[in-house]
Amino acid sequence: MNSSRKLLVLAQAACLAVAMPLAALAQELASWNDGPTKSAITDFVKAATTDGDPGWIAPEDRIAVFDNDGTLWSEQPAYFQAFFVFDRIKEMAPTHPEWKEQPPFKGVLEGDMSAVAASGEKGLMELLAVTHSGMTDEGFDTVLGKWLETARHPKTQRPFTEMTFAPMVELLDYLRDNGFQTWIVSGGGIDFMRPWTEAAYGVPPQQVVGSQIAKEYQIIDGKPQFMRKSDVFFVDDGAGKPIGIDRHIGKRPVMAFGNSDGDFQMLEYTTAGDGPRFAAIVHHTDADREYAYDRESSFGKLDKALDAAPEKGWLLIDMAKDWSRVYPDAK
Amino acid sequence: MNSSRKLLVLAQAACLAVAMPLAALAQELASWNDGPTKSAITDFVKAATTDGDPGWIAPEDRIAVFDNDGTLWSEQPAYFQAFFVFDRIKEMAPTHPEWKEQPPFKGVLEGDMSAVAASGEKGLMELLAVTHSGMTDEGFDTVLGKWLETARHPKTQRPFTEMTFAPMVELLDYLRDNGFQTWIVSGGGIDFMRPWTEAAYGVPPQQVVGSQIAKEYQIIDGKPQFMRKSDVFFVDDGAGKPIGIDRHIGKRPVMAFGNSDGDFQMLEYTTAGDGPRFAAIVHHTDADREYAYDRESSFGKLDKALDAAPEKGWLLIDMAKDWSRVYPDAK
Repeated sequence: MNSSRKLLVLAQAACLAVAMPLAALAQELASWNDGPTKSAITDFVKAATTDGDPGWIAPEDRIAVFDNDGTLWSEQPAYFQAFFVFDRIKEMAPTHPEWKEQPPFKGVLEGDMSAVAASGEKGLMELLAVTHSGMTDEGFDTVLGKWLETARHPKTQRPFTEMTFAPMVELLDYLRDNGFQTWIVSGGGIDFMRPWTEAAYGVPPQQVVGSQIAKEYQIIDGKPQFMRKSDVFFVDDGAGKPIGIDRHIGKRPVMAFGNSDGDFQMLEYTTAGDGPRFAAIVHHTDADREYAYDRESSFGKLDKALDAAPEKGWLLIDMAKDWSRVYPDAK
Repeated sequence: MNSSRKLLVLAQAACLAVAMPLAALAQELASWNDGPTKSAITDFVKAATTDGDPGWIAPEDRIAVFDNDGTLWSEQPAYFQAFFVFDRIKEMAPTHPEWKEQPPFKGVLEGDMSAVAASGEKGLMELLAVTHSGMTDEGFDTVLGKWLETARHPKTQRPFTEMTFAPMVELLDYLRDNGFQTWIVSGGGIDFMRPWTEAAYGVPPQQVVGSQIAKEYQIIDGKPQFMRKSDVFFVDDGAGKPIGIDRHIGKRPVMAFGNSDGDFQMLEYTTAGDGPRFAAIVHHTDADREYAYDRESSFGKLDKALDAAPEKGWLLIDMAKDWSRVYPDAK
């Protein structure tokens, strides 16, 4: 090897070292126990990033979508956004005496979760509209920011944003290190998630898809503002998830992660595409460290998708078996 | 310098050479004439990317939004999507005899552009619904793909996708080379644009925001499909543009480019933010090479925004003066 050729090789090696993400130096997916679940993920990603492998995926097609509630963070004893709603309703109740007798508000004020759950999606959307509208986006962000700082989960006493799943946060990192775009596609409110998803998951606002209320662009005190209206504009759940993916991404994902029947169509749409496809369901099997629930749960019911998983080739992530820890270390 | 240190320096130099985008080797913004317009753009971008400069912008905030019709490609003698609609209406007319007497269809069938324009946005949306719905996304893509290949512009005889503006395509490249995300925010149909924006502009589907019809997720012949419905879901024009930006990006852009009153609110929203902001209007002043129009035009009317530009600090791009060529070289 002549000396200029030697220099070139050295330069290339240096470039590779520079280009290697720091994350790769730590152990990848450290909170995942070794076994078939972890291997299924890493085998898929290794194939996707290996030129010439039948499982190779073009970089622009490496799109992975994640449900949020129950997939990236906990959703028991109720969706965390519901706690925000409940706290808001309690704050607003003095000026709405009629709520004392009117479901679903009555259930919230009496702390009766099952009554609230019984009001169904319609009831939840009504609560969302009342607590999420009639103010500007800026006003909403202020209220939400204050709540995120002060509110604590009833069981763990942690801030809600510290109840993300450490293995899933590692998975998001791992996928991005391998050139995947990571998107959140959640039934939760898009504006409820965007202020904190970048810090919690590394997912910037433009890669968050969620349910949306109507807004109006208005000039208030000479400044453009978004006024939040009480009509629901889009429900990003169930069959709405592929629609949300279509609207925001415009391309079928190659990987999808969910945990409930609300993710069925997202997983179905993802895995029905040609070429390599991957879908997995986070199965809540861990009553000790988190919660154990599936077919009978009011929040995050997993029934139809659990039955369909084997036939559809959707991987079940067994939280108790596959994860060495659930939450990140307490701060 | 010892030899290992020398090697390191050489390796770093090699890395820089590898990392330097090829585009930077060609003359930047080659189709822009030197002068205050070009300088205004490059000065803003240089400041945005210079650490410590008061005009510096954090990489994650470098978001630039572009209108499409009249800003990135021509829009005369009618929006290009209108030509697609007209061709479709003519193809579908034999099975719709009632259209002969019914505006806006009558205008299309008689080739009476001003009658079509007179039907306003409502008429155009009706034509869009009829020609863009009642089929699956796959079916639509097939029809659109065939049309894009075969249709020619009445004046230039070029394929429509070769009537993009070379200076704007260079600008998109230049901004991306400087770490900006480039987004399209157009009144045109999102599904009309996405199949070709990546090849034409380097803008992938997930960075295209546009008007949308309703869709339904359906399983047809065992395959998930999006069925296109005739209801309009979202009109991404005027005050709809900041709303579309909010829905898809979730962040206020720092740069905005438009050409008509339909872009007023997008420019207003962009420049009302704190910190460095940039907005510009492509002014169609070039009857020889393209078209000359503003206040009186049926398509791309520029009146209110033209009046507001000086006070708002929006730059006017004078097509005749500022661009050394309009279209890319013919293939």
